[in-house]
Amino acid sequence: MRVRNRKGATELLEANPQYVVLKPEEAKGKWKEIFGNDHPIHIEVGSGKGAFITGMAKQNPEINYIGIDIQKSVLSYALDKVLEADVPNIKLLWVDGDSLTNYFEDGEIDQLYLNFSDPWPKKRHEKRRLTYKSFLDTFKQILPEHGEIHFKTDNRGLFEYSLVSFSQYGMTLTGVWLDLHASDYEGNVMTEYEQKFSSKGQVIYRVEARF
Amino acid sequence: MRVRNRKGATELLEANPQYVVLKPEEAKGKWKEIFGNDHPIHIEVGSGKGAFITGMAKQNPEINYIGIDIQKSVLSYALDKVLEADVPNIKLLWVDGDSLTNYFEDGEIDQLYLNFSDPWPKKRHEKRRLTYKSFLDTFKQILPEHGEIHFKTDNRGLFEYSLVSFSQYGMTLTGVWLDLHASDYEGNVMTEYEQKFSSKGQVIYRVEARF
Repeated sequence: MRVRNRKGATELLEANPQYVVLKPEEAKGKWKEIFGNDHPIHIEVGSGKGAFITGMAKQNPEINYIGIDIQKSVLSYALDKVLEADVPNIKLLWVDGDSLTNYFEDGEIDQLYLNFSDPWPKKRHEKRRLTYKSFLDTFKQILPEHGEIHFKTDNRGLFEYSLVSFSQYGMTLTGVWLDLHASDYEGNVMTEYEQKFSSKGQVIYRVEARF
Repeated sequence: MRVRNRKGATELLEANPQYVVLKPEEAKGKWKEIFGNDHPIHIEVGSGKGAFITGMAKQNPEINYIGIDIQKSVLSYALDKVLEADVPNIKLLWVDGDSLTNYFEDGEIDQLYLNFSDPWPKKRHEKRRLTYKSFLDTFKQILPEHGEIHFKTDNRGLFEYSLVSFSQYGMTLTGVWLDLHASDYEGNVMTEYEQKFSSKGQVIYRVEARF
């Protein structure tokens, strides 16, 4: 998700250390301490404006959620939603998806979400797609054995690519939805993007894949 | 594919032993002899009225094709097309998909096609779906190591099921198309069913999966 720079984004993030982990490299291996409990920890890589992570945290109070985004302005909008939701089981992190092993110990994360990731449709940008094998290496490391990635997108090309990429990496697909909103899947929490594009009739794809 | 019984179907099949292998149990292990060359052998399980197998045989004269259907009447319509095409690289077989090991030696088949297989949408009929694990056992046995299944359908539920079934069986997805006719896939040969339903705007799904 691309947004314009938001004036005061940095100050807003820094003023809310109860939600924004400002020194993530010091958090490595200490996430259970940070949340103050032993609940499972799920992360969303590319959390955008935060509707998904906030909705999930409200729906599942026994799970801790970490939203990660590379853009400060985007993360600041997510923070708006987190402040409004006022739930204890969310943290936000302003870092890059390929550097996650700097902030999480091996196996420290229980589950990982990717939602409407940038499709990078050009073949020469394949390595930037979050379902490219180098990212899967990183995700595998911070997840437990047989850890899962749950991924949804409206981008057909990215979804086709990702099914093959997961499979060729040796992951097992445990569930596939080719029209999520027309299916009997329960408990779906929509992202901002998903609300907008599904209302225009766009099909939403979803997959659960296990290492 | 279900069709009404066709009067004279048996006689038509029996009158054309150059295309219809009438004693398939005697053919096991001898398919290269039957075709009279060493070309690769591809089979379509559930070949319906034969547009696909006939089109493929015309497009790829260096590959031998075997069309299999459990219904005599259906196979007799395929035979009409084969007689019209008049190519040497097709044989037809009136047998059931789960009995293939009776007619093919281990590894005797180079590639396998499933097109618009019966979706059997009810959960209690799962075992009848041609992408259920017991069928995959059979297909794996008659294919070489790392043999491939190429599958297309317009049925969303069956396609979702099949992607998961292939993956959980340990197969690797090597290509996925979620709207085949809108893609840049080249050389697609349409089945009768595909012509009919894609002209009504139905999306066609396709996957290539490797054991």
